[in-house]
Amino acid sequence: MKLSTPHILSINDLSKKDILTILQTADSFREISERPIKKVPTLRGKTVVNCFFEDSTRTRLSFEIAEKRLSADTVNISKSGSAMQKGENLLDTMKNIEAMRPDIVVIRHFISGAPMMVAQAIKAHVINAGDGMHEHPTQALLDLMTIKEVKGRMQGLKVGIVGDIAHSRVARSDMLLFRKMGIKVFVSGPHTLMPLGVEEFGVEVCRDIRDVLAELDVLILLRIQQERADENLFPNLREYARHFGINNDALKGARDDLTIMHPGPVNRGVEISPEVADGPRSVILDQVTNGVAVRMALLYLLLGDGGSEG
Amino acid sequence: MKLSTPHILSINDLSKKDILTILQTADSFREISERPIKKVPTLRGKTVVNCFFEDSTRTRLSFEIAEKRLSADTVNISKSGSAMQKGENLLDTMKNIEAMRPDIVVIRHFISGAPMMVAQAIKAHVINAGDGMHEHPTQALLDLMTIKEVKGRMQGLKVGIVGDIAHSRVARSDMLLFRKMGIKVFVSGPHTLMPLGVEEFGVEVCRDIRDVLAELDVLILLRIQQERADENLFPNLREYARHFGINNDALKGARDDLTIMHPGPVNRGVEISPEVADGPRSVILDQVTNGVAVRMALLYLLLGDGGSEG
Amino acid sequence: MKLSTPHILSINDLSKKDILTILQTADSFREISERPIKKVPTLRGKTVVNCFFEDSTRTRLSFEIAEKRLSADTVNISKSGSAMQKGENLLDTMKNIEAMRPDIVVIRHFISGAPMMVAQAIKAHVINAGDGMHEHPTQALLDLMTIKEVKGRMQGLKVGIVGDIAHSRVARSDMLLFRKMGIKVFVSGPHTLMPLGVEEFGVEVCRDIRDVLAELDVLILLRIQQERADENLFPNLREYARHFGINNDALKGARDDLTIMHPGPVNRGVEISPEVADGPRSVILDQVTNGVAVRMALLYLLLGDGGSEG
Repeated sequence: MKLSTPHILSINDLSKKDILTILQTADSFREISERPIKKVPTLRGKTVVNCFFEDSTRTRLSFEIAEKRLSADTVNISKSGSAMQKGENLLDTMKNIEAMRPDIVVIRHFISGAPMMVAQAIKAHVINAGDGMHEHPTQALLDLMTIKEVKGRMQGLKVGIVGDIAHSRVARSDMLLFRKMGIKVFVSGPHTLMPLGVEEFGVEVCRDIRDVLAELDVLILLRIQQERADENLFPNLREYARHFGINNDALKGARDDLTIMHPGPVNRGVEISPEVADGPRSVILDQVTNGVAVRMALLYLLLGDGGSEG
Repeated sequence: MKLSTPHILSINDLSKKDILTILQTADSFREISERPIKKVPTLRGKTVVNCFFEDSTRTRLSFEIAEKRLSADTVNISKSGSAMQKGENLLDTMKNIEAMRPDIVVIRHFISGAPMMVAQAIKAHVINAGDGMHEHPTQALLDLMTIKEVKGRMQGLKVGIVGDIAHSRVARSDMLLFRKMGIKVFVSGPHTLMPLGVEEFGVEVCRDIRDVLAELDVLILLRIQQERADENLFPNLREYARHFGINNDALKGARDDLTIMHPGPVNRGVEISPEVADGPRSVILDQVTNGVAVRMALLYLLLGDGGSEG
Repeated sequence: MKLSTPHILSINDLSKKDILTILQTADSFREISERPIKKVPTLRGKTVVNCFFEDSTRTRLSFEIAEKRLSADTVNISKSGSAMQKGENLLDTMKNIEAMRPDIVVIRHFISGAPMMVAQAIKAHVINAGDGMHEHPTQALLDLMTIKEVKGRMQGLKVGIVGDIAHSRVARSDMLLFRKMGIKVFVSGPHTLMPLGVEEFGVEVCRDIRDVLAELDVLILLRIQQERADENLFPNLREYARHFGINNDALKGARDDLTIMHPGPVNRGVEISPEVADGPRSVILDQVTNGVAVRMALLYLLLGDGGSEG
């Protein structure tokens, strides 16, 4: 059982069969984290280097826990304290890391396309843990896993995504992945935060998500960044909350089984109210749990026969 | 063999029997660190997340070494680079970590009570590694272990604590723990650094520790922080040293078997002179060695039957 | 098989027999990093503390990967977040670490001689991972391993080193090591960056490395630091590149089998042009690969019989 791609860089690289394989493998790995002994020897003797050139807690932690539960050896580098601060370019840093013979390099970088560039330059498998405003494929996969878990299917579902679609790598990966699996996607957000030509993703743009709320199976709220207000793309967080924030009131027209998701970290009271974030519709924390399982699955599948399942 | 509490948050949560169990277990774990192969499989497959939202070297290192010698998988988060910098609140961060299924969360936080709040919110066991000006229970336990090791007993001993009692979480945990085990406690320090109502801890306040020095079995010196001088709570470090610093001269009235302790890091020449810190009475480094053993014991006891002793 | 020294502090401490033992052991460890399962149980249950009080990516990563492939337990401390920021002195920090019973302490420090001071104070084995402007013995050993690998011998080879000889701990360790093994060394660089009395290392100073280029088997280019220009030791990086930078043009008089080395990180276009750094003569990345092997060898040899080979 192997993927058709040696790297996880973009949803575009994954075939429908790959995606089904990942979901099925993640399902079987999910159970390991619920055991008293949360560890299998699958990746014993494999070296994974986590390169987080952009701050992250949950994604780095999720990868690191996934790696350790598979018995891999893990080392971390972060933006501070790295040779890149001495002016070394990214490819030189990565070629140096390659020379230490890692099996997998996980990379988060503030520049869109950086993981792709790295994958072309080194022999190790590369996993994109978020690159600039481009993609965050492991987040999209855990989102899809959560949707399938809750709804029992994918084909024909209707998912809304609300927020800063233009700058969100989560939105981009979600749109690509969901469309590929036959999910209808609606996007909504301030006009200034909607990318030109977003329709080319095969999604439908709504001025107000409430216009289609009654049809939706899942509603994904994106974190809104203060820096976009600083760039004058919207007035301020309070205004954003008033127009696009989702509270119980805004959900009045929704179906009873509407599921609420958020990639985190949550701005309580801005894009989502506390009562919705913590309410019965929310599966925000299931997303996090599934994140570990999806990452275990990807690590395992990339190394294919190189590792033996425990 | 189990503790009566699922968390180590405050000395108040521990029964006398718990404390004896911890000391006895720590005694047996102390020997592991002296072996050529310093590792037992006790916590194999357990995940421990060390959350140090306040700077620390020795405490973080002590926990991490304890965890690794028990074969646990460990991951670290620090204040920098965390989602909390993006404005996420502590409980959201911790509920996210919980969703990754850690077995134990070790937390140091600058806010008094933070670990308690976390323990109420998540299912994992929580160990308080120091919270604001509240408590530092693992430090007090290693202090007690060291005292019992040196003196062979606890009941009836007389211990003096000198320094900034008002702001010291070590002093607070020490006072609570020592009183519980029948140790008489004297505290001393600048008037402005003595908490109101300190007598309620069942301790005796001395204007000058030399008034009771002849009676003391143990003298604990606390680190004095420059920031308290900046707050005008005492004139300056030199003045502090002159009145409260302990050198060989100040120890003239002491018993021959007086033991000197300090939680570290030491301000040489301020609260303690180098000749006392490094002298024959000092067990400062034994405290550090016992710290690893106490933390191994706590990790082991919290997970109870979940782990099997190696 | 053991070394004559309990610590790796300076090339001066190593006998010729030690060096041959290290090279031979590193050769056998090099192969482990090429296996599908890159891990041997040699140092299981050993604790290694990596203390990087000066920024580093590649050296810290190289040590950490070496330690993990030998199954050691590793913990890291860095300059930020350490007790030293609270004003604790280095020896107190290290004596505290010693009390936690590490087997090996790896230390990089901005002060020349710091690792020596630490080795005199603590019982654990100490490895110098670079101290101030003094030495970087593990870099020199990996340089030597790379030279021997490429040339098949050491005795009688001719090696040139170009750059800031005065401030380079790599140059100093290289000169000491190469001379010890019968390699003739030529050094070149701006007059202001040549140490007084460099001839006492038994090396020959050239005004222009091109004067001896035709004789050289190996040419090592050192990273030039912008801060030296800030100290007015040379005009600027562009001027440095013009006079001392090596590009294909500068190599016209070289032998066909001249090997190019650089300890990294590389200043592309300054001390070395991209076409040389990435060209067929360059073994810069082999140096990095050998670095892991050399460090595995040192860790193994220091612990001698304490570890059992896997």
